[in-house]
Amino acid sequence: MRTIYRLNLTTGEATKEEAPPRYVKLGGRALTAAVLLDEVDPAAHPLGPKNKIVIAPGLLGGTTVPNSGRLSVGGKSPLTGGIKESNAGGTAADRLARLGIKALIIEGQAPGKTYTARVTQEGVEFIPAPQLAGKGNYETAGLLRNRYGPRASLITVGPAGERGYAAAGIAVTDLEGRPSRMCGRGGLGAVLGKKGLKALVIEAPGAPLRSPARKDHFQETLQKYREIILANPATASYADYGTAAMVDVMNEIGGLPTRNFSRGRFAGAGRINAARLRENILSRGGAGKPTHPCMANCLVKCSNVYPDETGKELVSPLEYETIGLLGANLGIADLDAIAALNHRCNDLGIDTIETGGALGVAMEAGLAPFGDADAAFFLLDEIAGGTVLGRVLGQGAMVTGRVFGVTRVAAVKGQGLPAYDPRALKGVGVTYATSPQGADHTAGQTVRAKVDHRRPEGQADVSWNAQVNFAVFDALGLCMFVIPSLVAHPEVLADLVAYFHGWDFTAEDLRELGRQVIRTEREFNAQAGFTRAHNRLPEFFREEILPDTQTVFDVPEEELDSLEVR
Amino acid sequence: MRTIYRLNLTTGEATKEEAPPRYVKLGGRALTAAVLLDEVDPAAHPLGPKNKIVIAPGLLGGTTVPNSGRLSVGGKSPLTGGIKESNAGGTAADRLARLGIKALIIEGQAPGKTYTARVTQEGVEFIPAPQLAGKGNYETAGLLRNRYGPRASLITVGPAGERGYAAAGIAVTDLEGRPSRMCGRGGLGAVLGKKGLKALVIEAPGAPLRSPARKDHFQETLQKYREIILANPATASYADYGTAAMVDVMNEIGGLPTRNFSRGRFAGAGRINAARLRENILSRGGAGKPTHPCMANCLVKCSNVYPDETGKELVSPLEYETIGLLGANLGIADLDAIAALNHRCNDLGIDTIETGGALGVAMEAGLAPFGDADAAFFLLDEIAGGTVLGRVLGQGAMVTGRVFGVTRVAAVKGQGLPAYDPRALKGVGVTYATSPQGADHTAGQTVRAKVDHRRPEGQADVSWNAQVNFAVFDALGLCMFVIPSLVAHPEVLADLVAYFHGWDFTAEDLRELGRQVIRTEREFNAQAGFTRAHNRLPEFFREEILPDTQTVFDVPEEELDSLEVR
Repeated sequence: MRTIYRLNLTTGEATKEEAPPRYVKLGGRALTAAVLLDEVDPAAHPLGPKNKIVIAPGLLGGTTVPNSGRLSVGGKSPLTGGIKESNAGGTAADRLARLGIKALIIEGQAPGKTYTARVTQEGVEFIPAPQLAGKGNYETAGLLRNRYGPRASLITVGPAGERGYAAAGIAVTDLEGRPSRMCGRGGLGAVLGKKGLKALVIEAPGAPLRSPARKDHFQETLQKYREIILANPATASYADYGTAAMVDVMNEIGGLPTRNFSRGRFAGAGRINAARLRENILSRGGAGKPTHPCMANCLVKCSNVYPDETGKELVSPLEYETIGLLGANLGIADLDAIAALNHRCNDLGIDTIETGGALGVAMEAGLAPFGDADAAFFLLDEIAGGTVLGRVLGQGAMVTGRVFGVTRVAAVKGQGLPAYDPRALKGVGVTYATSPQGADHTAGQTVRAKVDHRRPEGQADVSWNAQVNFAVFDALGLCMFVIPSLVAHPEVLADLVAYFHGWDFTAEDLRELGRQVIRTEREFNAQAGFTRAHNRLPEFFREEILPDTQTVFDVPEEELDSLEVR
Repeated sequence: MRTIYRLNLTTGEATKEEAPPRYVKLGGRALTAAVLLDEVDPAAHPLGPKNKIVIAPGLLGGTTVPNSGRLSVGGKSPLTGGIKESNAGGTAADRLARLGIKALIIEGQAPGKTYTARVTQEGVEFIPAPQLAGKGNYETAGLLRNRYGPRASLITVGPAGERGYAAAGIAVTDLEGRPSRMCGRGGLGAVLGKKGLKALVIEAPGAPLRSPARKDHFQETLQKYREIILANPATASYADYGTAAMVDVMNEIGGLPTRNFSRGRFAGAGRINAARLRENILSRGGAGKPTHPCMANCLVKCSNVYPDETGKELVSPLEYETIGLLGANLGIADLDAIAALNHRCNDLGIDTIETGGALGVAMEAGLAPFGDADAAFFLLDEIAGGTVLGRVLGQGAMVTGRVFGVTRVAAVKGQGLPAYDPRALKGVGVTYATSPQGADHTAGQTVRAKVDHRRPEGQADVSWNAQVNFAVFDALGLCMFVIPSLVAHPEVLADLVAYFHGWDFTAEDLRELGRQVIRTEREFNAQAGFTRAHNRLPEFFREEILPDTQTVFDVPEEELDSLEVR
C-alpha cells in the first residue's frame, strides 16, 4: 500500500506516485498531518486553492482487523485556521486500502465547477457533474449509486460544503449506502466543496483484503484482540445502547450541555436518553435497529437506525453528540425531533455538533426560544436556503456569537464544544483547550478515567494520555470505541502492526507514533500563528459557576502549558 | 497633571487616584498601552467586563502648543483581539488636560443600562441616561448640549457601539459641538457601548491652560515649532484641499482602492478628488467651508464642512479615507453620496474605513452592485436597523467575508485596510502587516517617503521609521499632519517636552518613547496570542497582480520579521 494519488482540480489531472519512505509507517491522522505540514502553507487561506484535502485509511485499513475502517480526512480548517483531521467509519477506508491507496491528496480549485472523482483499480478520473450541484447528500448518494452501483463507496459534500460554510463536514457512506458517517468537524467539507469536488466514488470490486507479512503471529494476535474487545462490558453496552448511553452518564455528572452551556443537567434528559432511544426503536419496529455496524467487520456496532412512529427510518445513526447538542443544548426533549434535525444536518452536510452550538448561541441571542423544535427546524431552513442568517449559522458557534453579540460562546480555536461541559469533566476540558484540533472530545476523551472529574488535580496527565492514545488509534484507522478495551493492552496493538507489516514495532513505538502526530499538528499550528494563548477555554467557563456542579473550570494555566513540552 | 479617574460601571463608582511614577512621562497612546498591559488580561473577552477603556490626552495636551489636542482611546479590540489605540482631534483632550486629568480608566460593565459620566473640576459622577439609549451620535450630542451647555465637550457612542458592533467607533465633539471627530478604528465604541457608558461630558469652564516649567525656553521653542509648520508647503495644502488631496496622489500611484481592492485606479477619481471637493464647497457657499479646524489652536485646518447643493451642511469633515473606502472602493463617484454615507456612519457611530471595507466585500459577494450609492445606503439602513445582514456588516470586512464566502478580504489582524493598496504603496503595506494595531495607516504612513513605492527594497526601514514617529506624535497628543513638518526637527519636539515639563529629554528620548510604545503593544499582543504569522497581509495581495501597477506585495517575509527585534 504505497500509492498516493494527487487529484488536482485546477488542472483537472490526477497523477499517481509512490509514497516516499518517510510516509511508510504513517497512516490515517498521522499521514494527513505529515502531508499537510509538508505541503500546505500554514498561512494559506483555508478556502483558497493552496489548501489541500488529504484522505487516508489507517495503517490497519483494508485488513481483517475488526473496526479498522476509519477514514481520516485532513486539511487546514476554515473553522479554526489550524490543522484539522476528522475521521469517520463507513466503507471508504476499507476500499481505498484494498486498492493499495495510502492517500488521496486533493489540490487546487475549480471555482464554480462541480466534479466527481472516480477511484478504481485502473486509476482516478475526474467526471464533470453539474447535475449534482447544490444537491443534498442523500440525493447525491442515490444518484451516484444509480450510476455506479450499490457497492460503490462514496465520499460526498452537501450544499453546506459547496457554499463554503465553516461548519460543513464530509459524508462517507455506510454499508447500506447512507451518506451518514460524517467527518463532521472543522469545516473540511467547505474545503472540498470550494475545490469543486462534490463526490469521490470508490469502486473496488474483487479487490482482496490486504495480507499480513507474518501470517501466523498475526492471526494469533488478532484472536487476542477480538477476545479483549468482546470481553469488555463496554462493548456490549455500545451494542445495546450505542453512544446515547452517555446522556445519563453526563446528566449524572452534571456536564450535559443544556441551553447553550448554561446548565449541566437537563430536565428532559429522561426523554432523550438511551433507554428511551432503545425503547422507541424496539417498540416501533419497522426499519429500526437498536444496534447496527457502520463498517464491515465491526465488533462494537454502536450505530443504530432510528425509525419514526410508523417504523420508517428517520435517521441512522442517532448519536450522543447530536442528542446533546441538538437536544439538551437547545432544550429540546424530543428524540423524534432531534432525529429529524439530525437527518436534515446530514443532508445539508453540516456538523451536528457545530450546528447545535451555533443554534444554542442563536437561541441565547433571542432568535428562537429554547426548547422550540419547530424554531430549530426554521433555523436549519435558513441554513439550507443560504439566507444571511443561514450563512451566519453555517459559520458555526463563534461567528454566530460575534454577529449576535453573545459573549457566552463555547468554542476553542474557533470550534464549538462537543457535549461535555468542561466544568464538570475537567479532563476533557484540558483536551478541548490544548488539542491542536480545537475543542474536540475525540482528540482525547477522559470520561472513563478513574479520577474525580470535577477536581482540577491530575487532569492534565489524564488528558495527555488520552490525547496520545486517541492519536494512535486515529493513525491505525481503528474506531475509538475499542480504546476502552485495548488501552490496557498496547502490546497487542503493537504486535498487530508489527506482524501485519513485518516491522519491528513495540508498544513504545506506538506511543511515540501518537506523540508524533500531536507534535506534527502543533508545528503546523505554530506556523499558522497559534500560541499557548489559544490553549485556553472561553472566559465564561472560568468565571461562571455551573449550577449543577457548583464548579468552574479551574485547571491551572501552568498545567495546560505543561502539555506543550510533552 | 497626575490625576487618574477610575470609572467602574459594575459598581457605579468613580474614584480618583494619583498616577504612579512610572506613568509620569507617558501620555496619549504611550499611556493607554501601558495601562492596558498593566491592567487588562490579554485573554479577556473584548466585550466583557474585564476589558477596559483608557482615555488619555497626550503629554502636550492642554498646553499652548498648536495641534496638541489629540485624544487617545485604548482598549482590547473586538475587531483584532489585540491591543488598540485610536485617536481623534476635537475638544476633549484639551479639556481633560486642563482639568489635570492624565487618564480616565473605564472598567466593569452595566449590562442593559445606559449611563453618562460627567467630568468636572469637582470630580466624576455617573448619571443614568436611559433616554439616550439607541440614539444616534448627533441627537445624543444635541440632547447633551441642551442639558450641559454648548461648551461641554462630549465623548459618545452611537447605536453601533451599544449593539457591540466591532466596527463601532467613539466620537469626540469638535469646536462647534459636532460629534464627528472619530476614534474610528478597532471597534472601541463597542467596548464602551457594552459597558453601558453612552457618553462622557467634560466641563472645564475657566480651567486654565497648563503652564510650562521653563517658560522662556519653552516660548522660544514654541516659536520655532510654529515657524517650521507654517513654512512647510504641506501645511498650506492641507488648508486648501484637506486630506482629499490624497485621492489624486493615490490614483496616480495606482493604489486607490477600487471595487474591493481589485483595482488601484478609479475611473471616477476626478469626480471625488480634492479639486472637485473644493469647487463644490466654494461654489455652493452656505455652511460650506473648505478649511476648518477640528481643535483649538490648529495650524493645519485640514478639516472642512461639506454642504449640499443648497448650501446646507451635509457632513463635517469629509476626508480622504472615507472618500477612498466609501467612494472608490465601492465604485461610487459622487461626493454628495459619499458625504451623506459618511454622515450616516458618524451618526451610527461606525468607522467609515471598516464599513467601506465591509460594503466592498458585500458588493463583491453580489449583495449590491458596485457603484450603486442607493444600494450602499440600503446596506447602512440594515446596519442601523440591526437586521442580521446589518449585524454582519457591523462586524467589519473580515466577518462579512467569512459569512459570504469572499476570500478577497483586505484586512490584517481582523481589521480592514485604509485607502492605500499595499501593492502600490509597499511601505504602508509593511505597516499594515507588522503594526500591533492591525491594518492602520496612522500607525506609520510612508507615502511621503522618498522611495519607489512599488519596489520592495527598503520598505521595512521606511515603515519602521514611520511607525516610531507616529507613535511619538500619538504619545504627545500631536496631530499626524504636523509630522511632515517636524520629522526633520526632532530636537524641537524634544525641547518642547523638556521645557514644558522641566525634564531632561532629548531627541533620543523621544525616539525611545516611540519604540517603547510599540514594544508595549507587541507585548500585549504576544500575550493575547499574536505571532509573526499574524504580521502578514492577506494571501491575495501576494498572489493577485494589481492591474494598474502590475505589482504584487513582495516585501520579503524576512524583512517583515526583521521589525520584530527593533
